[in-house]
Parts: sequence; C-alpha cells; structure tokens
Amino acid sequence: MGKFIIIGERIHCISPSIREAMATRNPEPILKRAKEQLDAGATYLDVNIGPAENDGEELMKWVVTLLQSEFDNVPLCLDTANKKAIEAGISVYNRAKGKPIVNSADAGERIEYIDLAAANDAIVIALCSAHGIAADNDERMMHCQNMLERGMTLGMEETDLWFDPLFLVVKGMQDKQMEVLEAIKMISDMGLNTTGGLSNNSNGMPKNIRPIMDSAMVAMAMMQGLTSAIVNPCDQRLMETIKSCDVLKNNVLYADSYLEL
Amino acid sequence: MGKFIIIGERIHCISPSIREAMATRNPEPILKRAKEQLDAGATYLDVNIGPAENDGEELMKWVVTLLQSEFDNVPLCLDTANKKAIEAGISVYNRAKGKPIVNSADAGERIEYIDLAAANDAIVIALCSAHGIAADNDERMMHCQNMLERGMTLGMEETDLWFDPLFLVVKGMQDKQMEVLEAIKMISDMGLNTTGGLSNNSNGMPKNIRPIMDSAMVAMAMMQGLTSAIVNPCDQRLMETIKSCDVLKNNVLYADSYLEL
Repeated sequence: MGKFIIIGERIHCISPSIREAMATRNPEPILKRAKEQLDAGATYLDVNIGPAENDGEELMKWVVTLLQSEFDNVPLCLDTANKKAIEAGISVYNRAKGKPIVNSADAGERIEYIDLAAANDAIVIALCSAHGIAADNDERMMHCQNMLERGMTLGMEETDLWFDPLFLVVKGMQDKQMEVLEAIKMISDMGLNTTGGLSNNSNGMPKNIRPIMDSAMVAMAMMQGLTSAIVNPCDQRLMETIKSCDVLKNNVLYADSYLEL
Repeated sequence: MGKFIIIGERIHCISPSIREAMATRNPEPILKRAKEQLDAGATYLDVNIGPAENDGEELMKWVVTLLQSEFDNVPLCLDTANKKAIEAGISVYNRAKGKPIVNSADAGERIEYIDLAAANDAIVIALCSAHGIAADNDERMMHCQNMLERGMTLGMEETDLWFDPLFLVVKGMQDKQMEVLEAIKMISDMGLNTTGGLSNNSNGMPKNIRPIMDSAMVAMAMMQGLTSAIVNPCDQRLMETIKSCDVLKNNVLYADSYLEL
C-alpha cells in the first residue's frame, strides 16, 4: 500500500486574503499558504478559484504557473466549476511530479468532468452522488460503477478515478457516518482509490473539537481503506493521526522520528 | 451498539506506590488512583495484585471491599495468576453495577480461568493465544472458537467471553498490526465482545508519541468493532478519541459538550 496522500485545501477563494490575491494577481498570500501546507506534509495542493466565470482561464494558468515555478512543479488539484479554466490550467501544467487532479466530477450534472480528465490524462475526483446526497450505499455504489465505467470506456486507468463517498456532517446526519465509512470499504475492496473533504463531518462543531473529531474520522476511514483526503495539513493532530495510521498499516516504516518525517 | 467500555489499568502492583499500598494495606494511594480513573471516564477498574502467592486471597478481598465500599459498588476486573485470589475476590464482590471480570484466560495453561468464570457467573477476558503469540489469524480464530465452546458448554452467555486478540508491539512487529485489527473484525462479526491491552502497540516508543499512536490504534480498532479496552483513562487524547469514535459509530448522541460527558 502507498502512503496516504494529503491534498492541501487552503488555497481557496473562500478565504478573503486568497480571493483578494487572486483578483489582484498578488503572488505573496498564495505562495505563503502553499509553503505552509507543503512544509506540513501536503503532497498535492488544491487550487479553488470558485466559479471564475469571467477570467477563469487566465487566472488558473497564472496560479498553476506561479505555484509550479516556485515549488519545483508541485502537483496540483484544479478546482472550479469553470471547465475551460481547468483545461487552461492543464495546458500549462508540468507533470514532472504527478498528473493534475480534476476536482470534481459527480454522476449528475458534472459527469463530463470525467470526460475532461480522460481527454487530458488527468486524475479525477468522482463524487458518489448525482442530485443531492445518495440515499444509501446501493445508490453510492451505482454512481461509483457508472463513473468507473465511463472513465474506463474513455481509456482511463481505473486508479485515476478517486472516488469521494461524500463525508456528511455529524450535526444533522450522525446516523449516516458508519454508512459513509462502509462505502469507503466497499470501494477500497474493489482496488480503487478514495478521497474526500473529510472535515465536513465536523462542520458546525466548536473550533477546539474539530481536530479531535476529524482525527477520529480519518483513522476510522484509513482503516476502511481511504487512500487520500482533501484536508488542512496545518491541523497538527490530524497529520499526527494520519502518519500514525500509515505506520499501523505498514505503509511507512516506523522510526521514533516518524512524526517529523 | 453500546458505548465503548473503558477498563482502567492503573491499579497495578507494577507501580511502586500501589505495590507498597497493597503490602501495607494502605487505602489512600489505591483510592486516589481509583478516583482519578473514574473521574476520567473508566467504567471498570482493573485490580492487578500480581502473582500474590502468599496472601492473595485476603489481599484481593481487601481491595475489592475497599473500592466497592468507597465508590458505590464500582465494577471490577480481577487480575492475578492466583486463581484462589480471584475466587476470594468474587466471594465479597457486589454485582449491583455489573458482573466481575476475570482477567484472564487463554487457550493454553490458563484455560481453566474460563471454568472459573463460568462457575462464578463472571465475565472472562479470553486471550486468543496458547503457547506464545498466535502465528496468524487462523490460529487466533481457532483459540477463539475453542474458548467460546468451552464457555458455552459450561453455561456461559457468549457475550460474557471478551476476546483479546493480543495487541502486538509496533517496534518489532509492525507488519502484524493489520492482522490483529482484522482479527478484531472477524471476532466482532460473530457478534462477540473484544478487549485488550491496547497500549502494548506503542511499547518502547518515546513518551510523547505513545498517546498519539494509541489514539490512532483505538480508532482503527473501534472501526473494526472493538467493544472495550484495558487502558489508562487519564490519557486525555486517547479518551477524546474513544468518545469521538463512539459519536461516529452512533453509540452516543453528539452534543457540543460530548467530551466532558
């Protein structure tokens, strides 16, 4: 088994300083957050430019070039509802450190993101839902199968579809958590990769509790086979937990210094 | 599913202050550790008096009476290689808050601890090993089946055998950790209870790392169905993780105050 893959979530236009930096093409705030996340152990950086309807193509090219030139072709996850902006980003993307990730397809209106990934030899995050949250794991697995088939028909490697079961918020959907965890195992048992916005489970909880709940969730999810997550790598407790689970799963050899590696 | 059961491990003659208190029948150090563990969330308290070959019967009766009279018949786990001392402890044990636990049987020389538990309507911790560590899960499950049959033949409820897969130390047996976790799932899938000395996995690691590794392990083990563990309830990170997993498993309803409950 490979080491768990961290996709750093913090270059996101929902943050006022990042939105401003993107609007004014100011490199500093973006490079600062990138460095923090890479230092903390991120492999991929997610770049969320929002809907970016006006200048999305030019903006995505600018951010991709900025990050890859500064951080030795760091692999990126391109995240926007603007398909053309993703294609533009890929057009300037350097694959030396890994394929780009397209974030994200689903089995509904965003099914064509799979086609986009296939046409560009990219990885795609494939959300196991179509119109709203899947009712149960039968529905999740149906979406998984349909997206898998579509990708493979278009020539993708099956391991280039990273299935996202959609982590649900405990406050409101507490009784669905084990179902999501079971879905991860069902998908993993097929030999497929999984990922997701794991911290959604702790949405709305007090700030001091979120790292505790997220850490419990990531350990349980890694037991079920989760291979990646889109998270804040600057959450120290979360990262300690991920590294410890990688040791317990024998993905990484133990050394007393393993938390610093 | 019921809430995870914490068996507090800190009343143990390996501690110099507890050994001294047991030898001199000094209540204070024992009551202090008991209170600390109960305040931290222990349900059961383990009472380990060591081999106690000379005065084990009288000593165990003294400790059982001491703890149960001070802490409202707190349920106890009686832990010694002296069988007569366990019987003596049970003879004065009050079951108002739960059956006594006999710690522990195995499938080898200590198989008769099952008979002892059966004869006394007690719970028994049943170690899935006979002569040394089981070679693999085939052997673990063979021991589990044999001990289960023995207990049931003697009239025990199957849920009164708490199977211990034997947690193994990462430093030396890193590649066996997933096997132990798989054993927990195999036993849980039979509808049986499981427990164990979980922190054995982090034996020999730096002191600051142990709570981190133990927390990762307990979350993974709870995902696999672990229903109980013999641990230090004063390890705050471990307890936070257990409480969070109980929320994610829907064993306990979420409230923003769940860590204080």
